[in-house]
Amino acid sequence: MGQFLTHLESPWDGSRHEARTLQTTHAGRPLVARYDLERIAREVERDSTYYNAGCLWSFRDLLPVQDDRNIVSFGELATPTLQLARLGEQLGLENLFLKDESRLPTGSFKSRGMSVAISRAKELGVTRVAVPTQGNAGGAMAAYAARAGMEAWVFLPSDTPEVNKLECELAGARVVEVDGLIGDCAALLREGQKLFSWFDLSTLREPYRLEGKKTMGLELAQHFGWRFPEVVLYPTGGGTGLIGIWKAWEELSGIGWLEDPRAPRLYACQSDGCAPIARAFERGERTAEPWQGAQTLASGLRVPSAIGDFLMVDALRASGGSALGVPEASITGWMRRVGELEGVAICPETAVCFEALVRLVAQGRIQRHEEIVIFNTGAAFKYVEALRAVPRAERPRFRPGDSVDWRALAAQFERSARL
Amino acid sequence: MGQFLTHLESPWDGSRHEARTLQTTHAGRPLVARYDLERIAREVERDSTYYNAGCLWSFRDLLPVQDDRNIVSFGELATPTLQLARLGEQLGLENLFLKDESRLPTGSFKSRGMSVAISRAKELGVTRVAVPTQGNAGGAMAAYAARAGMEAWVFLPSDTPEVNKLECELAGARVVEVDGLIGDCAALLREGQKLFSWFDLSTLREPYRLEGKKTMGLELAQHFGWRFPEVVLYPTGGGTGLIGIWKAWEELSGIGWLEDPRAPRLYACQSDGCAPIARAFERGERTAEPWQGAQTLASGLRVPSAIGDFLMVDALRASGGSALGVPEASITGWMRRVGELEGVAICPETAVCFEALVRLVAQGRIQRHEEIVIFNTGAAFKYVEALRAVPRAERPRFRPGDSVDWRALAAQFERSARL
Repeated sequence: MGQFLTHLESPWDGSRHEARTLQTTHAGRPLVARYDLERIAREVERDSTYYNAGCLWSFRDLLPVQDDRNIVSFGELATPTLQLARLGEQLGLENLFLKDESRLPTGSFKSRGMSVAISRAKELGVTRVAVPTQGNAGGAMAAYAARAGMEAWVFLPSDTPEVNKLECELAGARVVEVDGLIGDCAALLREGQKLFSWFDLSTLREPYRLEGKKTMGLELAQHFGWRFPEVVLYPTGGGTGLIGIWKAWEELSGIGWLEDPRAPRLYACQSDGCAPIARAFERGERTAEPWQGAQTLASGLRVPSAIGDFLMVDALRASGGSALGVPEASITGWMRRVGELEGVAICPETAVCFEALVRLVAQGRIQRHEEIVIFNTGAAFKYVEALRAVPRAERPRFRPGDSVDWRALAAQFERSARL
Repeated sequence: MGQFLTHLESPWDGSRHEARTLQTTHAGRPLVARYDLERIAREVERDSTYYNAGCLWSFRDLLPVQDDRNIVSFGELATPTLQLARLGEQLGLENLFLKDESRLPTGSFKSRGMSVAISRAKELGVTRVAVPTQGNAGGAMAAYAARAGMEAWVFLPSDTPEVNKLECELAGARVVEVDGLIGDCAALLREGQKLFSWFDLSTLREPYRLEGKKTMGLELAQHFGWRFPEVVLYPTGGGTGLIGIWKAWEELSGIGWLEDPRAPRLYACQSDGCAPIARAFERGERTAEPWQGAQTLASGLRVPSAIGDFLMVDALRASGGSALGVPEASITGWMRRVGELEGVAICPETAVCFEALVRLVAQGRIQRHEEIVIFNTGAAFKYVEALRAVPRAERPRFRPGDSVDWRALAAQFERSARL
């Protein structure tokens, strides 16, 4: 493998930082990895088999790990991009796609970031890690840390989905519940860190989870024949996914690998139960005021204050997209509708993207013929609480030998299918 | 695509049946699909890119669907085969692998069978389907049926894992609970079928779910360089997975695509809460007497009576393997141990394979240097009830601002890590 990582950079003040040692933030803001794109252009063949192996690590020339032996992986296969033909037809959209990230290890896109971050942390000598989480990031960190033989501590709000707590514990992580929000978890983590010197894998507080998320954009471009679709809708909590997709576009443009240089328009989708980025975007601000009283079924979106806010807002503006907060009440209906029409179980975070899509189309900001990609960031199966809230028919229950009025039963199901 | 399906055959009495029309069983026993293997050998290149596309449907010359437009798919990517190096070292095994089927659509291996069966059913004009299920098969059928625009009915025991019920409903299926076992569900289904003419997708009551399961064996051979590993341990309920892997070996041998013609030794792993195949095997019988009082946390193994029993027993004997029922009480410990050491969340069904492995090694029936593959048939996240039963540390809970005795907390976690 070539090795093209050159340094870290602060996108806040442009300062340059050493990439060969363990780094966290600079002036309280994220650091991002930079590569020698010109050398990549000269030395790497875009279409070599290597780049078509169909897994995150096949992009390793654009990733920070120096030695393949440090790769910590469960086989992060390129996620499928599914056409939603039946739903598209109902909505009058010709090219509606879902990139199904639920198919990744631990059932969410968080594994991309953790595979890269844990691999790089291992390479730089880390043996103990910790993270504050809304759920899926904790589960992913716990799994990759276990595979790397690291000790893992996870701090999560006590109302995090139950499966997320259990998956962390299954992987042997030390799980601490906090009666508060993710910021309270982070505060507790930092207290314990003084004693235990955990490496903090919080969103954008180290540079490499972002690099993993970037592969969503790399795969997307590859899937569309080395160009980007016109529109990307992304459920936005901490925002690394969105920032990563934008970074992928910047780097692929910089290397000169794109057949069509146009950037995708990015839309950050939030629930109105916690929509700090949407509010900042509407107000024309670059950083977002913390959201008060954050509450949403889409647990991954419950991020009142994001360290990468300015990176998100910059990317949204540069792309020609925007940010939207849509009604919390729309979530479960979209989960059911997408499930029923397409058979795909979308997570509650992704449901907000469908509501945002319909609104953007109605406003004429997305055209019916455009290629639209929505990211399904996690497996709905992990959200038992949300699944329970999805509208459904009453579930009939019989004993063996019961006599069943089949016509009445069928009629009852028919009625609820029209909900 | 070539088209090589020639007919259906009864492995019970050898009779030949038409494959161009909808078929179910013959003399109450399964029918299996047969292909013109000689023509495949002449006309298909084993190593063409086509066969390396890394998805179930890239094997479509060995599948029954005639027209690609009938394929109903969510992108069934070849599942990764992960080396379990840390656990292998603890157990003194040099080549221990896990084929992680939890990464398939709907989080289980059941999607293989349903993708093929629903596609073929669509091709043959089916619009309404039904299935009795322990959980994951129902979820998979509901999803594929939704994507195909079919009406779906699912009959499941009322103590099926909650997520399985919810996933069926999310995909718009009509879910009926029965206070009984899967056989009681099947009986109720057959009663409703008289009125609604559902196509019954019960295990081995139509020929094509097996063809989907067969791709586990095709992928396995491909992964090991067109030969089979020496040992395969498979959690066994209805048994189609095991029968499918054996069918893959038979067909690949028949075509002449294997670099090494040796068959894998197959071990059917069951819980002693429901072990009809293990009992039949020990008794030297070909068909299995129904198991009374079936009860296990591994819901997928709760199949007291399997229509394909003789196919399983035949395959196990021919392969030189066997069938084992292992203590139910070992399940949650293995889930924790594999999670903690490897970061992989295994389902309770797969946990029984690890217990079986240790016993077979102790008995000298599996050698320490052999290549051993265990199938993780489903995503543990879908088994909330089982996850709750896995041993774990007490989960500390704090309020923001609480003062934490970190050393005591660390000591508490340490103790439970040594459980």
